[in-house]
Amino acid sequence: MSETKRTEISSLGEFKLIDHLTANFAATNSSTIKGVGDDAAVISCGSLTPNPSPEERGGRMVKVVTTDMLVEGIHFDLMYFPLRSLGYKSVAVNLSDVYAMNATPKQITVSIAISNRFSVEALEEFYEGIQMACKKFEVDLVGGDTTSSNKGFIISVTAIGEANENEIVYRSGAKAGDLLCVSGDLGAAYCGLQLLEREKAVFREHPEAQPEFSNRQYIIGRCLKPEPRKDVIDFFRHAGIKPTSMIDISDGLSSEIFHLCKQSETGCMLQEENVPIDQETYHQALEFNVDPITCALSGGEDYELLFTIDPKDEKKIRDADDLRVIGKILEKEKGMKMITKGGNEIALTALGWDAFKPT
Amino acid sequence: MSETKRTEISSLGEFKLIDHLTANFAATNSSTIKGVGDDAAVISCGSLTPNPSPEERGGRMVKVVTTDMLVEGIHFDLMYFPLRSLGYKSVAVNLSDVYAMNATPKQITVSIAISNRFSVEALEEFYEGIQMACKKFEVDLVGGDTTSSNKGFIISVTAIGEANENEIVYRSGAKAGDLLCVSGDLGAAYCGLQLLEREKAVFREHPEAQPEFSNRQYIIGRCLKPEPRKDVIDFFRHAGIKPTSMIDISDGLSSEIFHLCKQSETGCMLQEENVPIDQETYHQALEFNVDPITCALSGGEDYELLFTIDPKDEKKIRDADDLRVIGKILEKEKGMKMITKGGNEIALTALGWDAFKPT
Repeated sequence: MSETKRTEISSLGEFKLIDHLTANFAATNSSTIKGVGDDAAVISCGSLTPNPSPEERGGRMVKVVTTDMLVEGIHFDLMYFPLRSLGYKSVAVNLSDVYAMNATPKQITVSIAISNRFSVEALEEFYEGIQMACKKFEVDLVGGDTTSSNKGFIISVTAIGEANENEIVYRSGAKAGDLLCVSGDLGAAYCGLQLLEREKAVFREHPEAQPEFSNRQYIIGRCLKPEPRKDVIDFFRHAGIKPTSMIDISDGLSSEIFHLCKQSETGCMLQEENVPIDQETYHQALEFNVDPITCALSGGEDYELLFTIDPKDEKKIRDADDLRVIGKILEKEKGMKMITKGGNEIALTALGWDAFKPT
Repeated sequence: MSETKRTEISSLGEFKLIDHLTANFAATNSSTIKGVGDDAAVISCGSLTPNPSPEERGGRMVKVVTTDMLVEGIHFDLMYFPLRSLGYKSVAVNLSDVYAMNATPKQITVSIAISNRFSVEALEEFYEGIQMACKKFEVDLVGGDTTSSNKGFIISVTAIGEANENEIVYRSGAKAGDLLCVSGDLGAAYCGLQLLEREKAVFREHPEAQPEFSNRQYIIGRCLKPEPRKDVIDFFRHAGIKPTSMIDISDGLSSEIFHLCKQSETGCMLQEENVPIDQETYHQALEFNVDPITCALSGGEDYELLFTIDPKDEKKIRDADDLRVIGKILEKEKGMKMITKGGNEIALTALGWDAFKPT
């Protein structure tokens, strides 16, 4: 090899790396409605049946496509991650991206690379988890690839969903004045993961010790078995709401707010006191000497939905148990800010999880 | 871990493993036309535009979806595999599956897991290869995932294509009396790979040695830069041929004939003298003391198309430079046989490449 320039991947980080590598790719097919840069790509069908019903004529049906890769030792640790949960989660994280487009997932493909340390029985457990998710969210497993690896377990899932084109919600549609909203609560998966890591360390020192998970079932469940928010999409349809923008929270609230504001070319004002944090998360964070809001802002893997709505839909959102208005979209010039519980206005920084961050 | 039954993955092999793991998955969505078990899944659009043209009414447009995973150390060796070729090949092998459905690829997603031994510049080369394939075959890169791995380079590509539903060709449509045909020539990629492996071994012993590739450019190119047969699909359309069944040759001719006959519930008679083998392949095989027909039958990665046609289309095929009739489909009871050059009738055995075969 000649002495050429070497730029470390970690110097760019995951998002800048993707932007850099795909910068020269232009979509040329008319069926590509949206390529790289949202939770999923959007593809037209350009297609017809001979006698469309009036209902079908209402909008052009489009497909959405999203894919995620999970790597042992990076995204999961089989010391505490049951294979059944891993199968379920591998599907769930992709369905979450489909829901974040306001679309309905219909098919998945699952590819795995596995070393010979895994038995057929271990893979059966993994596929049981996949099947649980397929049944619950009514998606079909339609393909995949199964191969060997020299080391570890690598999973690649692609999910395909559908929607009418006019139902699709992008990251880029937020407008100044819109309300910033979130489903569920945040930071729990991160606290659950930290707890599992702590008990793993304890177990290594003292293999006879029993893990200490009392009163922490919720946060551990949030880590091991995330639930994509199909119910939120169903609620939107039922309530007649179309969010102006949406993204799923896989890398932490602040990182997702950054994506949303960047692509919508807006600023925002987040109110700390409105960020939903579960009691278990709160107590676990304090036990770890971490401010709970930090877990919500920077902890990943919650798989909740972050979205914006027109202020006219505010009442409908306030009626929903599980949805919270957490801030407001501002003009771009006003920047991205947070009002703390103490009433101070501070700059919001993107501190999401980055697969390439040096540790 | 409790003492439970442990079945080694290698005891099943790749295809039985997939069958076993996906046996309990039933497709439930009406949009799933074909799930696991062909070169690609087939998905309906269930969709319309308000005013279909007469042309569009001719057939319902469907999407096909296929995915492949390539693992460093299993599928490629970066000691002799240039990253640009690897990028090109990663796309090519997936497009080959789309063409094998008689469909046109339109979009791809590319996910990679990479260790920090790779620089941004190395990834740029890899993506240049992806872009070359995208341009040549007119497909758009619409998404993917980029993450880190503890070790090595793992690539997962998903390709999405389209066709009218009545154009789709499955593995299962062959009938007794149909002619068995193949594009291009076979065994070259396997011989190219063996040559690269030999020169690698030489290089390890004698780093000062120059690799010996004179008069072997073709077979090395077949290994490092396979070309999916878009031109064959174009020829079918132009000549008005719809094959009765089709599959791409990724694991070796005999293995693919087995898949085709199994799913079509037929037997076959292959004629050894008609199996196309390039002169370079022939000489390299003899140099390795291997019968050239063995390379064609059992060597993988040719990415040619194996297909069957109704005998009425025979003349059209005989006119094509690059397509050969290599045998005939028989009733299932007659089994799968080969007539050797010496005129002997022998049983055809499936000796394709298997990612889990113990080495």
